[in-house]
Amino acid sequence: MTDAETHKQKMKKMQAEHRAKVSEAGDPGRGLVLVHTGNGKGKSSSAFGVVVRALGWRQTVGVVQFIKGSWITGERQFFDRLGGVTWHTMGEGFTWDTQDRARDIAAAQAAFARARQMMESGDFDLLVLDEINIALRYGYLSAEEVLEGLRARADRTGVILTGRDAPAEICAYADLVTEMTEVKHPYHNGIKAQRGVDF
Amino acid sequence: MTDAETHKQKMKKMQAEHRAKVSEAGDPGRGLVLVHTGNGKGKSSSAFGVVVRALGWRQTVGVVQFIKGSWITGERQFFDRLGGVTWHTMGEGFTWDTQDRARDIAAAQAAFARARQMMESGDFDLLVLDEINIALRYGYLSAEEVLEGLRARADRTGVILTGRDAPAEICAYADLVTEMTEVKHPYHNGIKAQRGVDF
Repeated sequence: MTDAETHKQKMKKMQAEHRAKVSEAGDPGRGLVLVHTGNGKGKSSSAFGVVVRALGWRQTVGVVQFIKGSWITGERQFFDRLGGVTWHTMGEGFTWDTQDRARDIAAAQAAFARARQMMESGDFDLLVLDEINIALRYGYLSAEEVLEGLRARADRTGVILTGRDAPAEICAYADLVTEMTEVKHPYHNGIKAQRGVDF
Repeated sequence: MTDAETHKQKMKKMQAEHRAKVSEAGDPGRGLVLVHTGNGKGKSSSAFGVVVRALGWRQTVGVVQFIKGSWITGERQFFDRLGGVTWHTMGEGFTWDTQDRARDIAAAQAAFARARQMMESGDFDLLVLDEINIALRYGYLSAEEVLEGLRARADRTGVILTGRDAPAEICAYADLVTEMTEVKHPYHNGIKAQRGVDF
């Protein structure tokens, strides 16, 4: 075979594989549970990328932010101006801003109660529980109650859970787990977090 | 110290670290180069999440897609309806749809010429070169020409390069490299790619 023929054969095979992947036949008939974890960048930003995709298909989307309360982020400003995304932010901001564990626990519990209501309502195609893994890591929420909430979600509702150190029980339940690994990070070279890139 | 005091101490330390990270003082005075690579999900969606952040801060954003030509994606529909993002998609779609190597090379080269122009123009705060690593992997573009383009970019312009198998030379030049690793993937359980989640 010539190079061009080899290339054509290879691409035909990939085309067939791709078509099989996106075929409607494989619709699981329920929203998937995705976990974005690891120490690298992209856990939340990737969830917001999926929000954009879902909105592109005119799906209904909600976001509950478990940690980033009072910090002004680009994504928050963007979706506020855009409208149409139901957005709930937990209490008073980063845990290191409140410095009061009892208040943090109450705020996380209240945010999860809201998330649970949204998961069960049947009103959403996609819910992002942003940084919920951090609330789990600090023991503000238990893996059992989060799993219980996921199990009770409406069939149509997919859920993305972000944050480092996702608990093993939740990864075991999830359909998809991606670990974002930091290979090289600019903070190590003295570059600070950037508007538009990091928040 | 009581538990509450220990917690408060720890959070104070984290607050100080966080403030140091986001301080304006660390502004590198130029747009960063970010690479999203690895075999996991979230490379492109994370780039689109960063687009949302940048737009939230009213920055100017451009996207050049190197592979996903004719495939209708949620992100494309979303940003088309939104307006304000300069969007360029390479030729005729996935390489496995054209099955013609010479045509693919020409299309990739044309897309990169456009990307280069956008990088040098000084008109953009952020440019996403989506799936450019795939064009590099197939040899449609060389790492040298891409590096040359990155070096010639305007100071204000940050660039995100996505796709698996990012070349080592480009990772060495980048400010930040994140590897998205597939820990668990629903395709392995017979679930096909989902609208709103995967495209």
